[in-house]
Amino acid sequence: MKLSAGLDKIFRPKSIAIVGATARKGTIGREITHNLISYGFTGKVFPVNPAAEVIHSIKCYPSILDIPDPIDLAIIVVRKDLVLSVIDECGRKGVGGVVVITSGFKEVGPEGAKREEAMMERVRHYGMRIIGPNCFGVINTHPDFMMNATFSRTAPLPGKIGFMSQSGALGEGILNHARKLGIGFSMFASVGNKADISGNALLDYWMDDPATEIILLYLESFGAPETFTKIARDITKVKPIIAVKSGKTTAGARATASHTGALAGYDVGVDALFDQCGVLRVNSIEELFDLAKAFDRQPVPKGNRVAILTNAGGPGILATDAAAGIGLDVVRLDPKTIEILKANLPPEAATGNPVDMIASATPDQFEMALDSLSADPNVDALIVVFVPPIMIDELRVADAIIKARTRTDKPYLTCFMGPGEGSAGADRLKVAGIPVYTFPEAIASTYAMMVKYAAWQRRPSGTFPPAPAGVHDVRESLTQLARGGQTLVLGGEALEIISRCGIPAAPLWVAKEMEQAFNLAELVGYPVVLKLEAQGLVHKTEVGGVVTDVRNELELGKHYQTLMRRAQERNLPDARIVVQAMVKGGVEMVLGMVRDPQFGPLIMCGLGGVFVEVMKDVAFKLPPLSEEDAFEMVDHLKAKRLLTGYRGSASMDLKPLMDALLTLSRLVEDFPLISELDINPFVVCPDGTKSGAIDARIVLAGNVV
Amino acid sequence: MKLSAGLDKIFRPKSIAIVGATARKGTIGREITHNLISYGFTGKVFPVNPAAEVIHSIKCYPSILDIPDPIDLAIIVVRKDLVLSVIDECGRKGVGGVVVITSGFKEVGPEGAKREEAMMERVRHYGMRIIGPNCFGVINTHPDFMMNATFSRTAPLPGKIGFMSQSGALGEGILNHARKLGIGFSMFASVGNKADISGNALLDYWMDDPATEIILLYLESFGAPETFTKIARDITKVKPIIAVKSGKTTAGARATASHTGALAGYDVGVDALFDQCGVLRVNSIEELFDLAKAFDRQPVPKGNRVAILTNAGGPGILATDAAAGIGLDVVRLDPKTIEILKANLPPEAATGNPVDMIASATPDQFEMALDSLSADPNVDALIVVFVPPIMIDELRVADAIIKARTRTDKPYLTCFMGPGEGSAGADRLKVAGIPVYTFPEAIASTYAMMVKYAAWQRRPSGTFPPAPAGVHDVRESLTQLARGGQTLVLGGEALEIISRCGIPAAPLWVAKEMEQAFNLAELVGYPVVLKLEAQGLVHKTEVGGVVTDVRNELELGKHYQTLMRRAQERNLPDARIVVQAMVKGGVEMVLGMVRDPQFGPLIMCGLGGVFVEVMKDVAFKLPPLSEEDAFEMVDHLKAKRLLTGYRGSASMDLKPLMDALLTLSRLVEDFPLISELDINPFVVCPDGTKSGAIDARIVLAGNVV
Repeated sequence: MKLSAGLDKIFRPKSIAIVGATARKGTIGREITHNLISYGFTGKVFPVNPAAEVIHSIKCYPSILDIPDPIDLAIIVVRKDLVLSVIDECGRKGVGGVVVITSGFKEVGPEGAKREEAMMERVRHYGMRIIGPNCFGVINTHPDFMMNATFSRTAPLPGKIGFMSQSGALGEGILNHARKLGIGFSMFASVGNKADISGNALLDYWMDDPATEIILLYLESFGAPETFTKIARDITKVKPIIAVKSGKTTAGARATASHTGALAGYDVGVDALFDQCGVLRVNSIEELFDLAKAFDRQPVPKGNRVAILTNAGGPGILATDAAAGIGLDVVRLDPKTIEILKANLPPEAATGNPVDMIASATPDQFEMALDSLSADPNVDALIVVFVPPIMIDELRVADAIIKARTRTDKPYLTCFMGPGEGSAGADRLKVAGIPVYTFPEAIASTYAMMVKYAAWQRRPSGTFPPAPAGVHDVRESLTQLARGGQTLVLGGEALEIISRCGIPAAPLWVAKEMEQAFNLAELVGYPVVLKLEAQGLVHKTEVGGVVTDVRNELELGKHYQTLMRRAQERNLPDARIVVQAMVKGGVEMVLGMVRDPQFGPLIMCGLGGVFVEVMKDVAFKLPPLSEEDAFEMVDHLKAKRLLTGYRGSASMDLKPLMDALLTLSRLVEDFPLISELDINPFVVCPDGTKSGAIDARIVLAGNVV
Repeated sequence: MKLSAGLDKIFRPKSIAIVGATARKGTIGREITHNLISYGFTGKVFPVNPAAEVIHSIKCYPSILDIPDPIDLAIIVVRKDLVLSVIDECGRKGVGGVVVITSGFKEVGPEGAKREEAMMERVRHYGMRIIGPNCFGVINTHPDFMMNATFSRTAPLPGKIGFMSQSGALGEGILNHARKLGIGFSMFASVGNKADISGNALLDYWMDDPATEIILLYLESFGAPETFTKIARDITKVKPIIAVKSGKTTAGARATASHTGALAGYDVGVDALFDQCGVLRVNSIEELFDLAKAFDRQPVPKGNRVAILTNAGGPGILATDAAAGIGLDVVRLDPKTIEILKANLPPEAATGNPVDMIASATPDQFEMALDSLSADPNVDALIVVFVPPIMIDELRVADAIIKARTRTDKPYLTCFMGPGEGSAGADRLKVAGIPVYTFPEAIASTYAMMVKYAAWQRRPSGTFPPAPAGVHDVRESLTQLARGGQTLVLGGEALEIISRCGIPAAPLWVAKEMEQAFNLAELVGYPVVLKLEAQGLVHKTEVGGVVTDVRNELELGKHYQTLMRRAQERNLPDARIVVQAMVKGGVEMVLGMVRDPQFGPLIMCGLGGVFVEVMKDVAFKLPPLSEEDAFEMVDHLKAKRLLTGYRGSASMDLKPLMDALLTLSRLVEDFPLISELDINPFVVCPDGTKSGAIDARIVLAGNVV
């Protein structure tokens, strides 16, 4: 069954019953009834309240069962202790969808949660769909429905944005602010406790809704992140999803035994999730609107090359700073464009980019400059900054901008400053579908997000290589270890395991005595690494248990004894010394995995070695990783410069690193036994055959049967 | 003479002549005359225009010389080719101050620059002060003057902000937006080309103006950064300065021979300058206002501990995220506070922090909660988020907030969302001096800046140790080298020089042949470092010219030959091999200096070694460094964790590093001969006596006589 099955009954009803409708001002039951009628719902409205005969000039029924007509949607606003019996009546009546406004359920604690569960049992029994409880209502502005089933005090404008809010208050806040900015909605839903219908169901519904071209989400939590990823990945290829995710700082610190765990904050999972399914995350409601109005009214630019046109120096510089600062290309204009500009502007004008036409710029000059900048092959998007001087008619400038815009398919975002702010000229632009911003900085960040979205749309969907042969076998072994009660797999054991699924690793050889160490070193070839291993010794470096670059027998003998002494001092009876080949001339990276309680496994890649937690040069993604994902992870690191040939050093062979990331991804997905994993360092060499893991640790989930 | 001498004639005039006044609508000459009169200038206004008899019902004079009264201030709006003769007349008339609105001077190129210079000669001759040319005018809202000598279309509200704008258009934009927000100004000046009066003169003037309590700056360039630093450092101890500095990205890339140079972007200098004199830098005009209205109306919080009070869950979470995300402490409330809250709120309310009183919260509950949060000793500042529910009277909530605020000296910043946005309740709060924000994120960043300012005010002014004895001597030597035509001082020579001013350095010993290398290594003790030195060989590492950790004669002999071979291959006839003691167990840092064309020397400190330009973990400050500055530079680095004991390693002795930074500061200040300097690495060891410079390079300015 599709997640969105049955949602038509909620969003496209022909008849609505308001159970708990009243005529008393200041009550939710009155406001919803009033909103439905005054917004012009095209179907029939039936107020239900045993204590009233008529509400809002409409006959009122004592119960939903008394209504002679069939009912598609019931809005429930009764007291919390009456909700269950009303749900029963709805079920018996054959209602398809229910919106429960009433609060006092899961959000107030265990007793409420029980009430919610009891309610859901009945809902399931009758096969209804439900939004809420504890929500603000639903809206569909389509002319066939004109349904405002909320208690909002602002009527939403019709438009092409579908908006889901997990908070009722914020939902109302956003509807209200949008109305002020002239931004309209196709549909809106406040999902409250998400007892049945969640954000995922709405995404699924809006994916197929032709009236919804942009989706806004206000999220506080994720119910089913995997479902979200799957749906969102598809939608974002055709419709942008803009999300505010709050609740960043609530998770607090987690106990962790790996670097990967220590580096993965709660929010890393959200960012990884959004990034991998092309969702645009904004950090504030302000930014949400900046972006929404641009997507709403203008095409997505083809690339990041902007032209800035201004009639005032200072604001032009601000725009340039903001654009360049956020990674847009304030591009060099085509010589032809410059020629046209020079021929038509006074000599005091600046014809580079930004183009500063100075205060005397006329509407005709605006039109001429916009036409030539729009035609410039180097330009993908335009920023127009206008500070109305006293001698210039701002309405005519607005008209010039509107006219020029009709002759191009490149996006225009404008800033009307000073006396232009909120002026008639700015209003005329807004009405014509050209977004106006108060200050130029917001335009720059908006374009940057649009460019990011365009890149996502162009990005290939990803190649997912099959899992290496050894993965199954390795999972078996780990399950055996876990059954035996082991939770930590370290050093040689861990290296051996990861190498069995195809991740290259430098083997460790146990030297039971010094003589054997000499032989082993001879065998692997000097220089070698000596390590101390012992049960439960997680942080070898911290106890001085690692000696690198041991070059000959003399040094080996000395260090062997030192390590043995340390083992005795620290009372590690099962301590053993291992010999490993020393890998030189490579870059130490770290690969890892940590399991997020909400998002499941997160894969990490970063600059490794002992400073990993200091430099924090790491990237996270959610499995399954595609080849493109693996490449991007490395590509986003500062350490990338070290891998691609830095200051005379050779360029590293990235293949083994990519392969290791992909294998790691295959190993951990759908295999919850591994709770954390670190490969640190994984040395990446110019010659790929020399690359490999030098140390590793695996943390297994306890309580395995 | 004080920088601000004579400014009273401009800002506190008793009589003003408008030279170029007209009655024609849409001209600047008309607008200024109109603004002066309609704003209610308390002194006399004299229009000057040979072509008019009367303007705005006031007798008009053919020339300023015809006015019978003395004139304090002349506003010049005539054509650019008439400005010089008008200035002459002003001088002969004995005018004290002149504001030249007319453009067409330095900003249009060499011809205009000549005109400006000719004008300034006359201005100096007559001993006048001048604002402009190419500016937007000046304002003083003090009731004794009520002067609006601009052509702004918005009359400014009186207030306590002094505002200087380097861009006329942006000046008007900001005045206009401020009026909308209800923010008032004490004085305003658009400084245009800054031919005479610059931002520094205005700072100097406003420092002593009791009506100006906050200073806003919009800057595009710095005339005299040292003067700015000196004045700003004093002012910010008593009045906040909030600045937007634009033109970040105009400098482009510079050719540079040092890491320090490569890492110092143009903007690093501005940030360092502002930081060291307590100026609060904002990145957008939006943020400028967020901050201005808070400083304007609320006290600076004593610390960073905030309490969040809300009647709606979602917005409360947004506020918490934003506050915690920007480094504010969403503090644990005092048990007493929680007790009071629990006793007076319904059981569904959340009494932690954020305090969520849920939608039913009454005005009395708001007042009770605010009183107890304000009295909480753990709380420094309050964030109040209110989304008006239908059953609650928002005006009474506003009154409750206003009342509670009168009983505490802790700051309140509020957010009225949804139907509260721009509502009567929000207006009532604004009138009562409690700033209202549309969304909670802006409150968090505003408090963060206020907290930063409070920390600056508390910060001791700084201890500046005297220059070490060797500095004079070293400067002599460098001057000699420069006279001899040398521009690069590398390796051994550079180390020897910096060690002479007291920065510890590991000496280099030249080995003319292998035998001597053996002896030297024996002398300094194995392990040693071998380096190849040659004229002009700046990047030794890149040619494989450095071998570290050479442990015995056998290795030394082998590496000696390899290095000699490399020298031959690279055709370095004067190549020599040097031996240096190997410093182990320390952290490699980098110290450096680069000269900014605008700000002069910048001192850098960061994580060193070969990865310095990859990790970019560096901090910049302007000399002279105080001991506090040196400490802060290290304190702000990620690498600090490596220095203060990381994963079982010892804590490093920071004294030699601090001392080296201070010495470097003394060496380069007022000594422009050094254009760049790198000490990389400077190894910092647990035992301070082992710390020191391992390599260094000094770039000298050419053309020294």
